[in-house]
Amino acid sequence: MAAANNKVKIAILGASGYTGAELVRLLAGHPAAEICALTADRQAGQPLGAVFPHLAHLRLPDLVRIEEADLGASDIVFCGLPHGTTQKVIRGLFEARPEQKVIDLSADFRLRDLDSFAEWYGHEHWAPVLQGEAVYGLTEMYREALAKARLVANPGCYTTTVELALLPLVGAGVIATEDIIIDAKSGVSGAGRAEKQANLHSEVSEGVHAYGVGRHRHVAEIEQELSHAAGHRVTVGFTPHLMPMNRGILATCYVRMANGAGVEDLRSCLTGRYDDEPFVHVAAAGLSPSTRQVRGSNHCVIGVFGDRLPGRAIVLAVTDNLVKGASGQAIQNMNVMLGLAETTGLEQQALFP
Amino acid sequence: MAAANNKVKIAILGASGYTGAELVRLLAGHPAAEICALTADRQAGQPLGAVFPHLAHLRLPDLVRIEEADLGASDIVFCGLPHGTTQKVIRGLFEARPEQKVIDLSADFRLRDLDSFAEWYGHEHWAPVLQGEAVYGLTEMYREALAKARLVANPGCYTTTVELALLPLVGAGVIATEDIIIDAKSGVSGAGRAEKQANLHSEVSEGVHAYGVGRHRHVAEIEQELSHAAGHRVTVGFTPHLMPMNRGILATCYVRMANGAGVEDLRSCLTGRYDDEPFVHVAAAGLSPSTRQVRGSNHCVIGVFGDRLPGRAIVLAVTDNLVKGASGQAIQNMNVMLGLAETTGLEQQALFP
Amino acid sequence: MAAANNKVKIAILGASGYTGAELVRLLAGHPAAEICALTADRQAGQPLGAVFPHLAHLRLPDLVRIEEADLGASDIVFCGLPHGTTQKVIRGLFEARPEQKVIDLSADFRLRDLDSFAEWYGHEHWAPVLQGEAVYGLTEMYREALAKARLVANPGCYTTTVELALLPLVGAGVIATEDIIIDAKSGVSGAGRAEKQANLHSEVSEGVHAYGVGRHRHVAEIEQELSHAAGHRVTVGFTPHLMPMNRGILATCYVRMANGAGVEDLRSCLTGRYDDEPFVHVAAAGLSPSTRQVRGSNHCVIGVFGDRLPGRAIVLAVTDNLVKGASGQAIQNMNVMLGLAETTGLEQQALFP
Amino acid sequence: MAAANNKVKIAILGASGYTGAELVRLLAGHPAAEICALTADRQAGQPLGAVFPHLAHLRLPDLVRIEEADLGASDIVFCGLPHGTTQKVIRGLFEARPEQKVIDLSADFRLRDLDSFAEWYGHEHWAPVLQGEAVYGLTEMYREALAKARLVANPGCYTTTVELALLPLVGAGVIATEDIIIDAKSGVSGAGRAEKQANLHSEVSEGVHAYGVGRHRHVAEIEQELSHAAGHRVTVGFTPHLMPMNRGILATCYVRMANGAGVEDLRSCLTGRYDDEPFVHVAAAGLSPSTRQVRGSNHCVIGVFGDRLPGRAIVLAVTDNLVKGASGQAIQNMNVMLGLAETTGLEQQALFP
Repeated sequence: MAAANNKVKIAILGASGYTGAELVRLLAGHPAAEICALTADRQAGQPLGAVFPHLAHLRLPDLVRIEEADLGASDIVFCGLPHGTTQKVIRGLFEARPEQKVIDLSADFRLRDLDSFAEWYGHEHWAPVLQGEAVYGLTEMYREALAKARLVANPGCYTTTVELALLPLVGAGVIATEDIIIDAKSGVSGAGRAEKQANLHSEVSEGVHAYGVGRHRHVAEIEQELSHAAGHRVTVGFTPHLMPMNRGILATCYVRMANGAGVEDLRSCLTGRYDDEPFVHVAAAGLSPSTRQVRGSNHCVIGVFGDRLPGRAIVLAVTDNLVKGASGQAIQNMNVMLGLAETTGLEQQALFP
Repeated sequence: MAAANNKVKIAILGASGYTGAELVRLLAGHPAAEICALTADRQAGQPLGAVFPHLAHLRLPDLVRIEEADLGASDIVFCGLPHGTTQKVIRGLFEARPEQKVIDLSADFRLRDLDSFAEWYGHEHWAPVLQGEAVYGLTEMYREALAKARLVANPGCYTTTVELALLPLVGAGVIATEDIIIDAKSGVSGAGRAEKQANLHSEVSEGVHAYGVGRHRHVAEIEQELSHAAGHRVTVGFTPHLMPMNRGILATCYVRMANGAGVEDLRSCLTGRYDDEPFVHVAAAGLSPSTRQVRGSNHCVIGVFGDRLPGRAIVLAVTDNLVKGASGQAIQNMNVMLGLAETTGLEQQALFP
Repeated sequence: MAAANNKVKIAILGASGYTGAELVRLLAGHPAAEICALTADRQAGQPLGAVFPHLAHLRLPDLVRIEEADLGASDIVFCGLPHGTTQKVIRGLFEARPEQKVIDLSADFRLRDLDSFAEWYGHEHWAPVLQGEAVYGLTEMYREALAKARLVANPGCYTTTVELALLPLVGAGVIATEDIIIDAKSGVSGAGRAEKQANLHSEVSEGVHAYGVGRHRHVAEIEQELSHAAGHRVTVGFTPHLMPMNRGILATCYVRMANGAGVEDLRSCLTGRYDDEPFVHVAAAGLSPSTRQVRGSNHCVIGVFGDRLPGRAIVLAVTDNLVKGASGQAIQNMNVMLGLAETTGLEQQALFP
Repeated sequence: MAAANNKVKIAILGASGYTGAELVRLLAGHPAAEICALTADRQAGQPLGAVFPHLAHLRLPDLVRIEEADLGASDIVFCGLPHGTTQKVIRGLFEARPEQKVIDLSADFRLRDLDSFAEWYGHEHWAPVLQGEAVYGLTEMYREALAKARLVANPGCYTTTVELALLPLVGAGVIATEDIIIDAKSGVSGAGRAEKQANLHSEVSEGVHAYGVGRHRHVAEIEQELSHAAGHRVTVGFTPHLMPMNRGILATCYVRMANGAGVEDLRSCLTGRYDDEPFVHVAAAGLSPSTRQVRGSNHCVIGVFGDRLPGRAIVLAVTDNLVKGASGQAIQNMNVMLGLAETTGLEQQALFP
């Protein structure tokens, strides 16, 4: 990644987590980007390769503390900091340099409703004005606003997957909004690199369980977008399950069809909506999407099946939680913000097996 | 397993599959049982240890072809043969020795309705009279009939798990029967030891997908029992998913509460029903059952949660598909048939991690 | 596990780790044992089932802090505390009750040579007199001393596996002692339940690496026992590798044959030595032992192969690191100390798949 | 992958295996390549996406039978056919079109010595003249010959890994050649996609074992190259182990140092040799390479450690068996044959976690 004057200068705050590493992995192949700063408080002073050996052969700046980073030289700041810290850091960034462009991978700016934020996160928002300004970064839905955005709230992994599957269906009125039931399955990398007993190999492999049943924070984000598409308040059931694997999300959405729509109407609604999208694909009838199809890639694959229960359908969607569910979509948003082709640097195929 | 005159003589037909190995594993610790015959057509002539090295140190009869086995000396025949073959072999067993006791682990005798059988399996039943006689082997529900049975149709793994979770609730009328949605997750050992590309490690690990969406055969068995409990025909949604793990089933059941019942009513319905059961447990409020809790054991653990969707609840149940979902329940049924304590030989704890 | 006056009273110190849970799993099926105290400092006040849900249905005393436990009522104390703490706690146990019987699962009392201990652990031993008294708990080799022991130093998992494979060969002089090279592979449960980044699922699954190359502490224990068998100081190469799995150890030992011995001499040396042992088996020629054969069981399986390099052989041995490599052997030692049949409570078969 | 007149036309024979899919994955990002034909006998008539859903969104020719493929239009033929078939097919290719360039991923043309081939493969070679012409495709060692080659024998995965680690050391005389002991660990994808019981998830996960002990065919290839580097016949010990993972090879090589060399001499020998290589890296002292570092990438990482045994060292090397161990190196060779920059299309970073 040799420096070049005409390249976009990138800073990554919180580069020692999995989403940070994934940004570096993808940006290393991005022809127009150059990483200029990497921060990580606890590992400051080390090369990134000491924290992520798979990136050791890249020429990159060493990790520094956030206050030591020269962020003023950055065209784009990716922010992968923990909840809470994020709001203050980003507020500071804009105070120092109002024209800064920031893509935030945390949940801090995703909820437009400040009351909803306070309810789910337990405190008032610390940067409410910026909250109002932030553009929700589900690229396929907010492209125009993203092109002009200064602050992007990159969606969560569960929410990206669910929303790509359901937003067009809700918007078209082909499914009922009263009893949407989402059974979601996620690999463990979504929980990050923090040292938690629950994420040890011995605790995760060879088994499966649901967690956060009835109270996972991502539901607020899902409901916000579905409500927006429906034009009225939508509540959903959402039950995440931890899979004995590292990467991938499968959302199995149980829906009731509405307004006389049948399974083929749902499929053609989605096909029509995503026909020109480079990263979202509708599987042929009878094909059940697998997370293996998208491992390491920025793609989302959606399948539609009729349910045995009359009038009901099953919509399945898969993404890689660290790519389309996080860092890949962040780069997709960066491309939009910079006027680059949206697929730039994101054309890697999935890795299988 | 030294021979002893007063022990129950056991024959296992189809001993080279995982359920066969699991029967041997469990019976090796059963104080009242002695394995006298093991059949496997393709591996006939070999010791079982050549097929399953983990059982190599046991003293067992060699594998023989089914026609070479002296089944007349057996008190109990466990039948783990493929669909179709099973009906003819069991019919032959009873023709040769009408007082034989047979526990069938295949699906061949599980559906009481012959039309339903023909619909799901594509041909008329070849032993319809025996079909009428067979007792469905969900031990907790059919103990009295099992005690007098000559032929037991051991339930499938998915069905055992779902039925233990839902039968009491349907029977008590605390959930509606119109829109029961079951999202089931299974380890790959449920697919057996056959050489299928879909079950290779490279195809199964690090990923998840649904299969048989809307048309898995086990749904007929689930609906049969739920209908019986409800007193009317019940149709359910049932979507199985293949997990990147070997053992375990998790059934996440999305139900609508009925007749004014709340979540605590569901829990107390289940707690009351299973209070005296040695193998079925209701988790305390807030605890989400994991398949890791039951790996290798004959236990089933059930959890109940309120859904975010008003009026709905989520019932989660876990079993080990090869134990309570197959061979363990078969031995539990054998114990009932022989008048032994039901837990005999089944008191192993789960293996974690 | 109802109390019974004639049962052996057991206390487990440090019951919240995997070896603690494994002791409980196995003792739950031990007909002569009754667990009377379970300690865990951080989880004191909780039932064990809150820490290990797979054991939740057992009737057990709640976890208490070590100073709250009434250890005076215990016939046997299993000690699963961290290095260092152990020495002081055990010294205290004997001061309070000299006739106490203690089985220590830590490394603190395994090295007979105090200088060697100081070299590997970085400080003088804090209980040197007890160190001198402790009997090394490799059951197959020290049965007579164990029968009379007050303090047993239960061997490590790597060392148990390697020593069962090599001690008879070294003792018989059929292998050279100058260039024994041990390539060892271990599941991650050997690293315990502590919250370490290196043991996260995302860091362990789908990959393999060596660790502690040239400097793993277990080598001191291996060399101690091999030197004892050889009658002179033996140094070995020992390189442990972390496997993407939970349980199991495979030691691949590359040895040079000596004194005219050939591969069959090695095999018959081992076969002769272990012919009457219930838990150690020599695989037939050509069979390569797998950790899957011993998962969850107290067995060790050893295979012997000729190497392509003239005059060399390969000796492979497998155990379950938590059973024969830790808690199972600890119970085997308890049985010896109490004059019980050595296999009591240890007759579970391996769990496969 | 839109057609373009100035692109290199590629045919892949045997595209339905994992190495075929991996060629497609990598070539999809190769700016100078265009896939013109894909063959697979059993799946002929299907799109590749039906066989490999992760590649379904690419525009590719459908699978055809080999005799239906228009290979005359191809600049490069990659041959991923089974042993035996390969020799006849490639002979036929050159008969039809002598100027064809062929990169063979099978083992059929790797052994220069025809007697050695006959000994290991059980029959005389069927294309001995081509055998004599084939250039061994370990790119780092045979670049000049590869640049002029018509037929390349792409090395095996184990051999690539071992040879990159040991060839410079043997060539420099810093290690003895009499007792090189290689303990190799491989993911299961190296065994291909064939339907074998031994490769089922239930048989592979959660366990480890050695296989082909003392008689794996890759040893002939390893010895051929080490002998060539040494200038005399070298025999090695080589013991492969199957890991419960899909991708990756770790070779742990136990060597005796020679001619007064120490560990740092070994490291500097390797560092010097690979300093300018884009895909081979020597880890800093104390760092143990992990297969996770190279998953999905064409890199090889080598580590060197002093052994506890005086005068001995441990050399560890990792690759991804499907990339540098197969399809990645094949493309690297193609780049050399075509005069392209060697890293073209191979600059993907490893995927972690």
